[in-house]
Amino acid sequence: MSPEFELIAKFFTRPVANAVLGVGDDCALIRVSPGCELAISTDTLVSGTHFFPDADAEKLGHKALAVNLSDLAAMGALPRYVLLALTLPEVDELWLAQFSRGFLRLSSDNGVELIGGDTTRGPLSMTLTVMGEVRSGRALRRDGAQDGDDIWVSGDLGAAALALKHLQGDIVLQHDDFSAASERLHCPTPRLSLGRALIGIATSAIDVSDGLFADLGHICERSGLSAQVHFDSVPVFPPLRSLDAAVQATCALVGGDDYELCFTAPASMRPLVSRASAEVGLTLTRIGSMRCGDTKVHWINERGDEVPVGLRGFDHFLSGR
Amino acid sequence: MSPEFELIAKFFTRPVANAVLGVGDDCALIRVSPGCELAISTDTLVSGTHFFPDADAEKLGHKALAVNLSDLAAMGALPRYVLLALTLPEVDELWLAQFSRGFLRLSSDNGVELIGGDTTRGPLSMTLTVMGEVRSGRALRRDGAQDGDDIWVSGDLGAAALALKHLQGDIVLQHDDFSAASERLHCPTPRLSLGRALIGIATSAIDVSDGLFADLGHICERSGLSAQVHFDSVPVFPPLRSLDAAVQATCALVGGDDYELCFTAPASMRPLVSRASAEVGLTLTRIGSMRCGDTKVHWINERGDEVPVGLRGFDHFLSGR
Repeated sequence: MSPEFELIAKFFTRPVANAVLGVGDDCALIRVSPGCELAISTDTLVSGTHFFPDADAEKLGHKALAVNLSDLAAMGALPRYVLLALTLPEVDELWLAQFSRGFLRLSSDNGVELIGGDTTRGPLSMTLTVMGEVRSGRALRRDGAQDGDDIWVSGDLGAAALALKHLQGDIVLQHDDFSAASERLHCPTPRLSLGRALIGIATSAIDVSDGLFADLGHICERSGLSAQVHFDSVPVFPPLRSLDAAVQATCALVGGDDYELCFTAPASMRPLVSRASAEVGLTLTRIGSMRCGDTKVHWINERGDEVPVGLRGFDHFLSGR
Repeated sequence: MSPEFELIAKFFTRPVANAVLGVGDDCALIRVSPGCELAISTDTLVSGTHFFPDADAEKLGHKALAVNLSDLAAMGALPRYVLLALTLPEVDELWLAQFSRGFLRLSSDNGVELIGGDTTRGPLSMTLTVMGEVRSGRALRRDGAQDGDDIWVSGDLGAAALALKHLQGDIVLQHDDFSAASERLHCPTPRLSLGRALIGIATSAIDVSDGLFADLGHICERSGLSAQVHFDSVPVFPPLRSLDAAVQATCALVGGDDYELCFTAPASMRPLVSRASAEVGLTLTRIGSMRCGDTKVHWINERGDEVPVGLRGFDHFLSGR
């Protein structure tokens, strides 16, 4: 590493309290708490693919970590450690100061220690690896849903996709609505407390990163069940509600980047789901149920008819196919 | 992830035997063996920075994993798991088939399970995160060298840098010499058995990825000691020996990508170092000793005089400065 790049490492290096050994050796060393498993996830964000090249660096530092922590939330894991591999076209100290501020604030707020990483020269991108602890055998997985389970989703959906539509000029939002949507796109909040509160309650969980259609589809595939979702029950980002049904569906059902949790739980757990909702201060909405059948998501309207939502929302439906 | 990109994931997905949960959920889940710590390292390889854009994909798959495993070797850890975050400009099935072949052969040879990753679209690069186990408190670190310790290096140095010089047209090698050097550049062997054999013997260790000068320098800095290295003792890649001293120094002392281990051990351990060498079938050469003083590497010639080797090898020396 060049001295210039060693400087970068210093931007991010903080003393570690929990790890045995942090940044500065060939490897970091950690101990996993007795009776716990380690949950591990890695995600890459590439400039031009996952964020605009001129994205606010502080928000990007937050988001890069948030989307990774969201994977730990979906397993019900307590976040502990993170590795940051940063590829930069050049050393821009202002950018680094801002990026590290957003990154380190979120990591510190969640008790996450940066224990290692890599800094390389190349097109702007970042790959984070997060690690968290969960009691052995208790993690929320995608494959545990049971026939008859309720399907739940936290918060509301569609804000991030709506903000993106505004930024891309597909739609024009009023200032306040755009601010609210934009905050959700750029500064998502990983649902860590909720994930942990759902252990012992939920039978499966996933974070909504690629859109409800795709992500609930993963629970279906892994659990070998079909999802019957009441379209009108899906909690939609309030400013979306006044827009037409096709835009609502595109944003709330297939739009990604929401980072809410979608989970399944037996009907007998409804009181405990309510209690978890109150505990973590987050609305939880029951949107349907898991059924034997195929391993797909079926959208049901208020008349009980199936609505053909595809990968592009209502596209197929609206074009009459 | 698009269906096209899900296809990619399938190229790499293998059943796991040791992990609790592998590819296919929000996180992988692992258990760490009782009495062990987890050693973790992450490294990024970027096209155009770390490898040529037209690099042989099978060798690249090998090398991407090998350089990461080398970090585990340097800690004396037993490799267990890997995560692969792959960024690709497009889906090229032939490239993927070759890359995964090189990657999976090395992982399988070393009992390493691929437990997760990410696939994104963007300029070609890959970030791997490797995890290995080492008995608590026994890892080889950079900060353990003691005053008077011998300095050792495995194998010989300079092959990778020499191959690169040939490829860049700075030097012309004979066919056999280039083949041998090129193999070391493109298909390095992580010194995993050696690292584990050195536990309880070595006081510090590092892998020679950035060149002996830089890497031994890290041991000096972290251990707060000076290194006195006998220039003529440094084991040099045989085809380098006939070239002039400046080229030898540039390749063997400051050239990177060798992935040998450099370590320190008390003189009392010499018989055990010899035994470890025999056990793993790898030459180990004593090249100097650690001393109190500054935290730099000093190169000593056969007359006992210090030779001024800098970041660019003998440049400063030869130019009369």
